[in-house]
Amino acid sequence: MFQVDLNCDLGESFGAYRIGFDDEILNFVTSANIACGFHAGDPLTMRKTVRLALEKSVAIGAHPGLPDLAGFGRRNMDISPEEIYDIVIYQIGALYGFVKAEGGTMQHVKPHGALYNMAAKSPQISGAIAKAVYNVDPQLILFGLSGSELVKAGESIGLRTANEVFADRTYQQDGTLTSRRQSDALITDCKKAAEQVIRIVKEGKVLTRQKTEITIQADTVCIHGDSPHALVFARQIQELLATSGVKIRPVKNG
Amino acid sequence: MFQVDLNCDLGESFGAYRIGFDDEILNFVTSANIACGFHAGDPLTMRKTVRLALEKSVAIGAHPGLPDLAGFGRRNMDISPEEIYDIVIYQIGALYGFVKAEGGTMQHVKPHGALYNMAAKSPQISGAIAKAVYNVDPQLILFGLSGSELVKAGESIGLRTANEVFADRTYQQDGTLTSRRQSDALITDCKKAAEQVIRIVKEGKVLTRQKTEITIQADTVCIHGDSPHALVFARQIQELLATSGVKIRPVKNG
Amino acid sequence: MFQVDLNCDLGESFGAYRIGFDDEILNFVTSANIACGFHAGDPLTMRKTVRLALEKSVAIGAHPGLPDLAGFGRRNMDISPEEIYDIVIYQIGALYGFVKAEGGTMQHVKPHGALYNMAAKSPQISGAIAKAVYNVDPQLILFGLSGSELVKAGESIGLRTANEVFADRTYQQDGTLTSRRQSDALITDCKKAAEQVIRIVKEGKVLTRQKTEITIQADTVCIHGDSPHALVFARQIQELLATSGVKIRPVKNG
Amino acid sequence: MFQVDLNCDLGESFGAYRIGFDDEILNFVTSANIACGFHAGDPLTMRKTVRLALEKSVAIGAHPGLPDLAGFGRRNMDISPEEIYDIVIYQIGALYGFVKAEGGTMQHVKPHGALYNMAAKSPQISGAIAKAVYNVDPQLILFGLSGSELVKAGESIGLRTANEVFADRTYQQDGTLTSRRQSDALITDCKKAAEQVIRIVKEGKVLTRQKTEITIQADTVCIHGDSPHALVFARQIQELLATSGVKIRPVKNG
Repeated sequence: MFQVDLNCDLGESFGAYRIGFDDEILNFVTSANIACGFHAGDPLTMRKTVRLALEKSVAIGAHPGLPDLAGFGRRNMDISPEEIYDIVIYQIGALYGFVKAEGGTMQHVKPHGALYNMAAKSPQISGAIAKAVYNVDPQLILFGLSGSELVKAGESIGLRTANEVFADRTYQQDGTLTSRRQSDALITDCKKAAEQVIRIVKEGKVLTRQKTEITIQADTVCIHGDSPHALVFARQIQELLATSGVKIRPVKNG
Repeated sequence: MFQVDLNCDLGESFGAYRIGFDDEILNFVTSANIACGFHAGDPLTMRKTVRLALEKSVAIGAHPGLPDLAGFGRRNMDISPEEIYDIVIYQIGALYGFVKAEGGTMQHVKPHGALYNMAAKSPQISGAIAKAVYNVDPQLILFGLSGSELVKAGESIGLRTANEVFADRTYQQDGTLTSRRQSDALITDCKKAAEQVIRIVKEGKVLTRQKTEITIQADTVCIHGDSPHALVFARQIQELLATSGVKIRPVKNG
Repeated sequence: MFQVDLNCDLGESFGAYRIGFDDEILNFVTSANIACGFHAGDPLTMRKTVRLALEKSVAIGAHPGLPDLAGFGRRNMDISPEEIYDIVIYQIGALYGFVKAEGGTMQHVKPHGALYNMAAKSPQISGAIAKAVYNVDPQLILFGLSGSELVKAGESIGLRTANEVFADRTYQQDGTLTSRRQSDALITDCKKAAEQVIRIVKEGKVLTRQKTEITIQADTVCIHGDSPHALVFARQIQELLATSGVKIRPVKNG
Repeated sequence: MFQVDLNCDLGESFGAYRIGFDDEILNFVTSANIACGFHAGDPLTMRKTVRLALEKSVAIGAHPGLPDLAGFGRRNMDISPEEIYDIVIYQIGALYGFVKAEGGTMQHVKPHGALYNMAAKSPQISGAIAKAVYNVDPQLILFGLSGSELVKAGESIGLRTANEVFADRTYQQDGTLTSRRQSDALITDCKKAAEQVIRIVKEGKVLTRQKTEITIQADTVCIHGDSPHALVFARQIQELLATSGVKIRPVKNG
């Protein structure tokens, strides 16, 4: 039987600032990537989000980012692999405190934004992240862009990994995502997005922007939950996957 | 046999900013309170300090503070017990990440500065801290001002606690420390400081500023390590305790 | 002829985080209090808000707060008058940079949240704020709670001041606002709120919660703009004032 | 007569953290670049440093940096020219507040660390900085690496500029500084450093690491003041310049 995980970034509010529809999106996903206070999130938000995920039986993951709240962790920084190792351990640990206090377990780690993108390409940065995850807990699953350096680094150190694909993004012939700066980077038609995901899950193939087919592995699919539109999209993706016979469950249950 | 723990605040550097003589002071103390990034410290400093403490077999503790780097966590803030619960869990967890990555164990938690002082007097704040510590790990030992609300809250929830005394501070008749705003708050003569500690450890008594004797319990003694002078003081205290037949060892070994 | 100023807190977004309906509320108010990056706001938001205010001919003021983004500047901090002096100068200066770059002028300074409340009661804190404002530019107008220590400190140092009243808050017999913790702190009926303001403006009197009348001065009225509901409320207040023959214009034009 | 300016980065302390020997170094330099709270510095430090510079008749400049206290502004960030424009205005304004409150004037602006290096090479970033400086005050002098894009951008917009050279760094054939990663990047012999400066000032020439001579303009020389060794170095440079007949005075007096 075909099966896949749906993951979403959550817990991105900060103080008086609200982002995301965490409560609603948790009804559609099976894995939650919870911000850890560097690019977004704060202690109160982390506790509430962990609690909510446990209530809805959604698997919990740490979502460490660069120390850049003003830039939401989306700006590349020239930060050394050694320091990346340290900030990833810090953030996993911080979330781990809440997971332990709430009596749950942590399933995975998925880097955020610029850290995710930098790690996809750089063996040094990926190696630092993989080592940090492994040293804190070798049972954690490392999420990374499908086929990227991050997934390779995780496998190399002995971590279980999850290849991540995107429902609403188009792919290039080399397996990378089309840059958001290009006009056809996004798939805004929900049905087409679901079809792309279903094909990836069932056949391991995706049609690239260059009209060629490439093989791609999908262990988890990234879903957005930061707007009412995104919620509708998430629900439709979930339903279309279900009616296509794709079972949705957390990576750890795969 | 008489025995006591010597503890010191460590890991207070931040980025390019250096505070403290961590390497040297670790030769004299048995418990290290490591800053967790809110009032001082950063991920890199935390990893280095945890590693150093493990190398020197000094017991490791989390030293959570208020979110006030500019004020070094020394300014009272009107922060709710609920949020204190959250920031303490976050900080213990963050340090726990490094302890786990380095293969060590965490012995204790000691709140810092204004959080320590607020907790000494407020049952609500103490309760929030004790609950946070207990929920993350009920084996952790809670350090608090000797006889304070924080120690009571720890005992009440079922934590092992350590009553902390100060070598270089004078005491009031009600067991509190003399305010630093008063002229005779500090004991600058190292020998007198050691004598005060030895008497507290051996007899459970201290001579107050009002020339009366009160009973006081000492499970751990706070030592400073942030100046060359403090290092000399620390070494002398350690030597005077040793020659007086007081064994120095971590609280967990008591 | 009766006249009054309507002011609103603006520019409270931070990075990816959005708060407030700045564009809309600027149609109803005559003075904008712009956050300066300590409790809310960031450089990009400040520039955009200054530009918007100038386009709509709304008078510009600095809205300095405590260094507490996580608490939105609403938590009291035990911060010295000397440091308050410094953080107020810093924040006025920062906004002044944008005002100068955009070719505008700064009309006023209004402290935010906990700083505003602390200043209302403390002559020391008020004195520090008034001195900071005066030293940066003695032409600036200092906004403070009507009849408070802050207004007195401003007058004492030689600043022009503006007594601020609230449309949607009830008053106590001693002229202070009813605490938000009490059930009847807020006036949710827009018409009643407008009536209270009109009476204050025309007669200098307000009916307190204790059913007594007290005298109160209103140079400026605080309006909220952080929700769609607040926008409706603001427009209605503005209309009711206009139809009652109260002219709305910036304090500096009074 | 030959003349040049000596400048130094100052006001880099933050809260309880101390960096630099501001009081001493101000005896040897003629221009002070004062940190503005993003990469270093805080409001209290800014006020004290402005006051100290005025007392010692040292010209005052803003030293804006990237928003990266943890990295001391030394890490490149992928930040847009638009946002650089905003953070430079914010920081100049903040310092301007203190300069105005203390009754002084601001002479110049010199970007810090990674911002300085990024600006030296990028016309977009340089253009944003130059525009920010010009829009706040067209009388300000813009400091940049001698012959760099930053100096060109300043001239292009109509600002007075100052070409900066380094006493203790070696130069490449293309006029750039030798990277610190190379062994011969630094000139540690004070006499050789002074000779390099004197030759640049008097002849407009420097011997590169490739043993060729290139022309280079020096309006100001960067001096360090962050260690006792740096202070000795600064005093010797100052003395050797004086005895060589090079007058030392602020750029604005040139």
